[in-house]
Amino acid sequence: MNTHELIQELREKNGSKIVLFVADGLGGLPLTPGGLTELETAKTPNLDACAKVGVTGLSLPVLPGITPGSGPGHLGLFGYDPLEYRIGRGILEALGINFQVTAKDVAIRGNFCTLGADGKITDRRAGRPTTERCVEIVNKLRTIKVPGCELFVEPVKEHRFVLVVRGEGLGDKVNDTDPQAVGVTPLPAKGADPASQKTADLINQFIAKANEVLKADAPTNGLTLRGFASQPQIISFPELYGMRSAALAVYPMYRGLARLVGMDILDAGDSLGSQVAKLKEVWNDYDFFFLHYKYTDSTGEDGNFPAKVQMIERFDAIIPEVRALKPDVLIVTGDHSTPSKMKSHSFHPVPTLLVADDVRTDEVTEFGERNCLRGGLGQFQAMHLMLLAMAHAGRFGKYGA
Amino acid sequence: MNTHELIQELREKNGSKIVLFVADGLGGLPLTPGGLTELETAKTPNLDACAKVGVTGLSLPVLPGITPGSGPGHLGLFGYDPLEYRIGRGILEALGINFQVTAKDVAIRGNFCTLGADGKITDRRAGRPTTERCVEIVNKLRTIKVPGCELFVEPVKEHRFVLVVRGEGLGDKVNDTDPQAVGVTPLPAKGADPASQKTADLINQFIAKANEVLKADAPTNGLTLRGFASQPQIISFPELYGMRSAALAVYPMYRGLARLVGMDILDAGDSLGSQVAKLKEVWNDYDFFFLHYKYTDSTGEDGNFPAKVQMIERFDAIIPEVRALKPDVLIVTGDHSTPSKMKSHSFHPVPTLLVADDVRTDEVTEFGERNCLRGGLGQFQAMHLMLLAMAHAGRFGKYGA
Repeated sequence: MNTHELIQELREKNGSKIVLFVADGLGGLPLTPGGLTELETAKTPNLDACAKVGVTGLSLPVLPGITPGSGPGHLGLFGYDPLEYRIGRGILEALGINFQVTAKDVAIRGNFCTLGADGKITDRRAGRPTTERCVEIVNKLRTIKVPGCELFVEPVKEHRFVLVVRGEGLGDKVNDTDPQAVGVTPLPAKGADPASQKTADLINQFIAKANEVLKADAPTNGLTLRGFASQPQIISFPELYGMRSAALAVYPMYRGLARLVGMDILDAGDSLGSQVAKLKEVWNDYDFFFLHYKYTDSTGEDGNFPAKVQMIERFDAIIPEVRALKPDVLIVTGDHSTPSKMKSHSFHPVPTLLVADDVRTDEVTEFGERNCLRGGLGQFQAMHLMLLAMAHAGRFGKYGA
Repeated sequence: MNTHELIQELREKNGSKIVLFVADGLGGLPLTPGGLTELETAKTPNLDACAKVGVTGLSLPVLPGITPGSGPGHLGLFGYDPLEYRIGRGILEALGINFQVTAKDVAIRGNFCTLGADGKITDRRAGRPTTERCVEIVNKLRTIKVPGCELFVEPVKEHRFVLVVRGEGLGDKVNDTDPQAVGVTPLPAKGADPASQKTADLINQFIAKANEVLKADAPTNGLTLRGFASQPQIISFPELYGMRSAALAVYPMYRGLARLVGMDILDAGDSLGSQVAKLKEVWNDYDFFFLHYKYTDSTGEDGNFPAKVQMIERFDAIIPEVRALKPDVLIVTGDHSTPSKMKSHSFHPVPTLLVADDVRTDEVTEFGERNCLRGGLGQFQAMHLMLLAMAHAGRFGKYGA
């Protein structure tokens, strides 16, 4: 029996409420050996209070040593094995611009490029056009029709756009048309199987028409495509856990990831304050709430240690408002670590805390990386976190007699 | 996606150096309850210094409670699931005498035995001949030719030898001819599938000729065979990790295990001093270095607690010379525990430390079993150690976007 079968066998409904509050990139590193991490430096009286009454531990997003992107990081937290379910680049790019992907879609990342008179690429990024120019070119491409499918072209930024092909039976095993070099022509699309060849045929027609439409628009007179991807076939989160599930996230990417697993996406405004206001408003309408906070990650990515400390303190300050709702289970964790020292996502385990009535408390009274090492949850795989959430919410029956 | 596919997808080259220093059978037990283990007793200022700036933990060679032999112990450390990849007894015996096994070989452990006039076994160890006598008998067996294969007969010790059959399409699913009893005849070899029957046919011809050649040589006038084994089909370590990889080991068995996974086997002399001298010499020629130290295991096997303590201190003394080379990642661990108290390999988790720039240090400042329990690596499966090595060396890209 796999874990998802087990969950569906054991799950029960009991009216309890679970809040999963993800501080993106929460874990960190000291700047100097033996020093304090961002979380250990931050003054977090409210998280410390949670650690004191709750249980703590460290979450391994994928496997020891593996640094995840946001996609696998969140899939793990939602209880999907990130090595089994993969979100392709095209899908992730589409999620990031809030495009609502369907099961009939193949999503693709596009780059505008400059083609010479001989059709060879002279600039892979088309001289980095402005985003306004990107929108103009995209509007031209939107005039293109290809029989047998619907096409969606969406601007992203500068030379980047998203192309989505919607149709019946379209496969995503199609090569990148981007040759990753100048002085050569873009590659024709080819499918690795009949369904993917169907996609490739449609795409090749689109490309031919696009080259015609854009021919007078040098330096943005050509395009390359990569990361062809369909939605992963995934059981929906509400179906898996039997919970009405809502996502309250500010950034499109995380709303998109939550939509991908079938959560309801609520308009949560643009700040922790508006997210929690919405949480209060819909408290009676849902069983499970996914809240996402971005700035612990973005400040880490910037390599700005003091800013990350400040963003953690801001995050800490909202915690009492969430606890005031008396969720049966409150979990605070991250989808991965983003140490300012490394200016990137990292593989280091992620500090995690869980507050509920029936936790077996540990001796941890402050929320931080080193303290969590002594936590009652130990080091665990992120994909098992939802099992702990369901259990502490009393939403699992006994396995076997 | 399995772990090896993941590794190959994420690996990157960056010129970093990784040293995996294996003190065989490193972990131990106190002689009396509550006492200190060998490692805790030993004065190890240099390992303690590593523990202070690095991260520590405990490695589980296979699964909790499972005691590994040297083969599975090392496969795990090299990142191969020891439950998936098995090294047959014949192969291990061949590795132990430095025989260079190829993909066309079936290797077999042989025992000389004494046969009565009726062909029945009267002594399963042929009266324990001297090793010199073993060599003489082996030389006689080397005269035997069997059409359709190459045969190699190698002396081991006393009544033991190794037989290797080399040919095309030879299977290793062949029963032991050793009946594990006296008063009965050796069993004929039978193959469980056509390829293995091919091996069995060749072996039965060899046995018939051997009985003829040895008939006047009682008590060493017969032989039994067991542990038929081909090389496991295994992706090579350098290919898997994309690293030029060298083994510096004194004992043939460990050179053999490293050769099995495709490392370059260097002449490392016969001591820690010569191993480290060679390490310095070839420092620029490789990315990964496997160093093996035997005496922590052999003194444990002898049940000699003070000798094991001394061997650990000798091991500790060489550490500064290795650190002076400034490896990007230095790992010290064992392939299993060998408590002197038990005089054997054991299942107890193995103290492990990792020193690198981006380690998240823990509060452990002394290297020992109890301290490692508080270590940042927690208790982890040995087969994940190389993931941590690669990650800390900056040799992994991000998984997913």
